Amino acid sequence: MPEPTADDVADALDALRAATPLVQSLTNVVSANFVTNVLLAAGASNAHIDNVHEAAGFAAVASGVLINLGTPDDATAAAFDLAADGASAAGTPWVLDPVGVGGLPWRTDLAAHLLTKHPTAVRGNASEIIALAGQGNSGRGVDSSSGSDAAVPAAIALLEFAQVVSASGSVDYIVGRGDSGPVGVRVGGGSPLLTKVTATGCSLAALVAAYLAIAPTPLIGITSAHAHVAVASDIAAENASGPGSFAVAYLDALAAVTPDDLRRRALVEPFSLSTGRA
Amino acid sequence: MPEPTADDVADALDALRAATPLVQSLTNVVSANFVTNVLLAAGASNAHIDNVHEAAGFAAVASGVLINLGTPDDATAAAFDLAADGASAAGTPWVLDPVGVGGLPWRTDLAAHLLTKHPTAVRGNASEIIALAGQGNSGRGVDSSSGSDAAVPAAIALLEFAQVVSASGSVDYIVGRGDSGPVGVRVGGGSPLLTKVTATGCSLAALVAAYLAIAPTPLIGITSAHAHVAVASDIAAENASGPGSFAVAYLDALAAVTPDDLRRRALVEPFSLSTGRA
Amino acid sequence: MPEPTADDVADALDALRAATPLVQSLTNVVSANFVTNVLLAAGASNAHIDNVHEAAGFAAVASGVLINLGTPDDATAAAFDLAADGASAAGTPWVLDPVGVGGLPWRTDLAAHLLTKHPTAVRGNASEIIALAGQGNSGRGVDSSSGSDAAVPAAIALLEFAQVVSASGSVDYIVGRGDSGPVGVRVGGGSPLLTKVTATGCSLAALVAAYLAIAPTPLIGITSAHAHVAVASDIAAENASGPGSFAVAYLDALAAVTPDDLRRRALVEPFSLSTGRA
Repeated sequence: MPEPTADDVADALDALRAATPLVQSLTNVVSANFVTNVLLAAGASNAHIDNVHEAAGFAAVASGVLINLGTPDDATAAAFDLAADGASAAGTPWVLDPVGVGGLPWRTDLAAHLLTKHPTAVRGNASEIIALAGQGNSGRGVDSSSGSDAAVPAAIALLEFAQVVSASGSVDYIVGRGDSGPVGVRVGGGSPLLTKVTATGCSLAALVAAYLAIAPTPLIGITSAHAHVAVASDIAAENASGPGSFAVAYLDALAAVTPDDLRRRALVEPFSLSTGRA
Repeated sequence: MPEPTADDVADALDALRAATPLVQSLTNVVSANFVTNVLLAAGASNAHIDNVHEAAGFAAVASGVLINLGTPDDATAAAFDLAADGASAAGTPWVLDPVGVGGLPWRTDLAAHLLTKHPTAVRGNASEIIALAGQGNSGRGVDSSSGSDAAVPAAIALLEFAQVVSASGSVDYIVGRGDSGPVGVRVGGGSPLLTKVTATGCSLAALVAAYLAIAPTPLIGITSAHAHVAVASDIAAENASGPGSFAVAYLDALAAVTPDDLRRRALVEPFSLSTGRA
Repeated sequence: MPEPTADDVADALDALRAATPLVQSLTNVVSANFVTNVLLAAGASNAHIDNVHEAAGFAAVASGVLINLGTPDDATAAAFDLAADGASAAGTPWVLDPVGVGGLPWRTDLAAHLLTKHPTAVRGNASEIIALAGQGNSGRGVDSSSGSDAAVPAAIALLEFAQVVSASGSVDYIVGRGDSGPVGVRVGGGSPLLTKVTATGCSLAALVAAYLAIAPTPLIGITSAHAHVAVASDIAAENASGPGSFAVAYLDALAAVTPDDLRRRALVEPFSLSTGRA
């Protein structure tokens, strides 16, 4: 299995828009609106279904599921469990976004428990990925305090549970299971303004769920989501005057970006895993 | 009772801005912010009060109530019941928005139960209206998979419970109780970009609650909300570059649109109910 | 202790951006997204942590805490208690925003209870401040029906519990504890469009929490938050076409405004408390 290229990413965007996959999001109240708007703009669809009565059943019919730990409580935590089980039983790809894991003990346990249910993908910032792998600890909640390359060994360790793992940052590092051990893909570009608008990371994870539904492999799926976000954010930043206008332009750009734009602009390249412990 | 005209709609906008009705919203977490901003922009006001301690009491003092089934859980479902009872007891008009009904059994039962409490208005997309009337089933959650004219028989059937019912789509179909049987009004126009921004339907239903509070009849009220949205969205689309800039321009247009704009641009016309089963 | 000046406010903005304080928000679902984006734009950071398992512990490590009563339920109300206790025990400054207090009995009791835990600051609109002090009653929920100067006696009364209290309006009135009795600061300016976008008040209270974390005194902190908002909103209004574009421009302006802008434009002045009952 060779690492994904910009051509694979361009093809995946075509497939996304053709299929309009329906994501089921169980996400935090800060991000709920933006996550849905990002999915709609990019070419997917969303239903935020996080109650215990419907979470499992809907995970069986959704195209992909996002479980985001941003604002859990007892009720939604129970729904996370049901959705993960429902998705796994039905073969629906699902994404775990371990927001705030590390600094917050209760959700750290929740995330560790969900990890044992084998998400298709894990997407976090570097400190969350490191904490989820049990390799460090962060006290800053949703903020990342590590460079994302520092999370590569942790991401590789998490491949015991998930098929693909990504650590977002100024450069995004993605690892997946290859035929002869883990493989790595790096996605560059992406505007720093993404860090000045809340829920850009959460909505990236939601987009991973959408792409997993239509991509030929999980590694192409997660890489495509990261590349779509990076290119759209770079386009958006060209016309933005600050975080408010950037967020608006970002939604426009997610919708306007074409497969050819991704083919030309996506900075997708393999990277050596020699720094990893695999 | 003749069907509402563009003049009626223009007068209702005048009345809305003069009265600034206060809506009580019990709506989903995806839409909560946008619903409030739409109401403020249009000329109304909002308080999101969906806890069991305050839902009933506030429904007695609010100008109108929105009950939206987008992200129910046990706590908010209990509050829906209380708000519906409080509104009914006080004579406050209330709107049921049956988001996702059909494909999701638990909320389908919730909606059927709330329907027996006789909402003033029901507003949904076609597949939700069809499902609520027990005439079909949709597996796509909040997405509409039917043309809205297909929902007219279901909308007529729901007049057993509600005074007015609307099915949103590229054309909106609205039915109400006339002196000699059901009457129908169609509202055309409206930008397709409305489907690329989440909570435009939810906020339309909230605007129905606001208009019901000030309109001479429920049919004029619900028609005015649909026409206000359609004209504002058409104005917004003229300057939008995508879903992000459209959402911003839509809020501006909801505020800027004048009664004269509605008089000139609202596409409001009666339609024959011969396709219905009444 | 002299009243804060525009120079103090400018220095506080410098300190805010240097420190990037991390606010813990326990805020309503309507405002959750906007509150976070306002904090990010202004130069702070946010984690929305309102579950009972993590609320207290995080309040001990956060730079400041916001407790907002906009959409409480039993679960979040319990978390409010824990966060207030956690913040107080750790010496973390915390802000009480008594949204809707007065017209809604259940949350009015909640607010009265939280007040006894001695928030560092209380921020509300005039009718909420009056109601919280037990000096009046408002039936309009989150709307203010009083001029903010009418709340000065109530704000002074609340100094029994809080170190600083502000009442927002077309002019903002702020009171604090001086060496020889209460002192008052008035912050003018601020666009009327702030009232046409939801959560501008909630996000101001969040910004108070951020400024309390870095300002030399609570009075400088709360005054700086009000001044930052007033100047940024005035800048935003210059280019806005309505509430939608204003909200976008407001986030841009919160980020773009410099300490020198505040020094030149902030309308900060002492006012006589002779109208108060102190």
